[in-house]
Amino acid sequence: MVRFFATAGELSGGSLTLTGENAQHAKVLRLKVGEEVLVCDGEGREALCRVTEAGNSWELSVEEIRESTTEAAVQVSVYMAFPKADKLEHVIQKATELGAHEIVAFPSSRCVSKPDEKSLKKKLERWQKIAASAAEQSGRGAIPQVLVLGSFQEALSRAAQADKALMFYENERATTLRMALETGSYKTVSLLTGPEGGLEEKEVTQAREAGLQVCTLGKRILRCETAPLCALSAVLYHAGEF
Amino acid sequence: MVRFFATAGELSGGSLTLTGENAQHAKVLRLKVGEEVLVCDGEGREALCRVTEAGNSWELSVEEIRESTTEAAVQVSVYMAFPKADKLEHVIQKATELGAHEIVAFPSSRCVSKPDEKSLKKKLERWQKIAASAAEQSGRGAIPQVLVLGSFQEALSRAAQADKALMFYENERATTLRMALETGSYKTVSLLTGPEGGLEEKEVTQAREAGLQVCTLGKRILRCETAPLCALSAVLYHAGEF
Repeated sequence: MVRFFATAGELSGGSLTLTGENAQHAKVLRLKVGEEVLVCDGEGREALCRVTEAGNSWELSVEEIRESTTEAAVQVSVYMAFPKADKLEHVIQKATELGAHEIVAFPSSRCVSKPDEKSLKKKLERWQKIAASAAEQSGRGAIPQVLVLGSFQEALSRAAQADKALMFYENERATTLRMALETGSYKTVSLLTGPEGGLEEKEVTQAREAGLQVCTLGKRILRCETAPLCALSAVLYHAGEF
Repeated sequence: MVRFFATAGELSGGSLTLTGENAQHAKVLRLKVGEEVLVCDGEGREALCRVTEAGNSWELSVEEIRESTTEAAVQVSVYMAFPKADKLEHVIQKATELGAHEIVAFPSSRCVSKPDEKSLKKKLERWQKIAASAAEQSGRGAIPQVLVLGSFQEALSRAAQADKALMFYENERATTLRMALETGSYKTVSLLTGPEGGLEEKEVTQAREAGLQVCTLGKRILRCETAPLCALSAVLYHAGEF
């Protein structure tokens, strides 16, 4: 079924109008009166709607409001040290498809790329759009938020607030992701990975001190854009999502 | 440690010479006499070597030959219906990093892109190079083979020969990947996914008849380049790789 995103306010009435990009999308899809569509509020609720007017104006009647059925039960936050721009966009798109709750970018010592303050606002808008578009295409009921933090320490403190906070480090041998996931119960998970050049040992120590558990993703060295998606897939698999 | 790929023949002597791209790579890395490097035969064996001559000619002495420690115990073959070119290259690179045993491309009804016979040889060479480069970078002991099959039926027959042969289909609801992986014992796994437009129901029926088990990767619709990597990550996680 076709899926649109609207605001929570729009969903609460008995009817709603598709405007802007949604209207354009409806035009491209040639929606007809009587067809059923889904309108999501982007925060996990969705409305089953029926088209009541098509063509010049796009009117829908709300038939039923319900919790989205496509959101993961476990909320996974992907914390990624700034990689080169195209890789971050790649991870935002893929992590959204896979079912991440949010994507958080932050600086670390070996980051070769970091957006300057001036361009950041525009970039964030672009990244948020990528997440919205991927959420729509993959049929999600919520759009992950894309956040940018100012320091590595801030990323650690925020990540550590999750029920389970994990950092991946290629020199870790003893603790596997499975070991970390098999202990305790949790509803929120943070997954923190480094940039192209990896994390510094000092940073790994800081992460431990902040309360993150350091684990390995196996014996092969994964690129910085592969590691978060591999970890996210495994966490959602472990949680019984597929 | 720096890692080169050579032929099995080269590894069997007590010494070897780095030539061609390997020599160039050694030059860029400014290897010095006395340094240790790894030379892999690309098939799962590796030689611990020491540089005995550097500069104009690159000579190594073989200190120890051993099984590679970075190969996965379970051999996973990734079968992917031809996507657009850049996506196939993406999957070859990422699947190699993650630890796939081989990557097999094949045509299916809804493929919008399929290399013609004429350009295929050149493309295969390019794809094999992507796999070799990703294997080197991720520290693998073996280079996955990239294969192209001529028909969907051929892909099914070949995939079905694995101990566990799975097809992913977005309309499957009952059988999860976990259910499929938790039954029986297996050393080889095939993972088959469709192109941009998805698999046809007819093709799913053919797959079942050929002996593949059809399962779901969850409630979110994954893009054709995301599904194989998500499934591969989960299979390797399930197998205890990380």
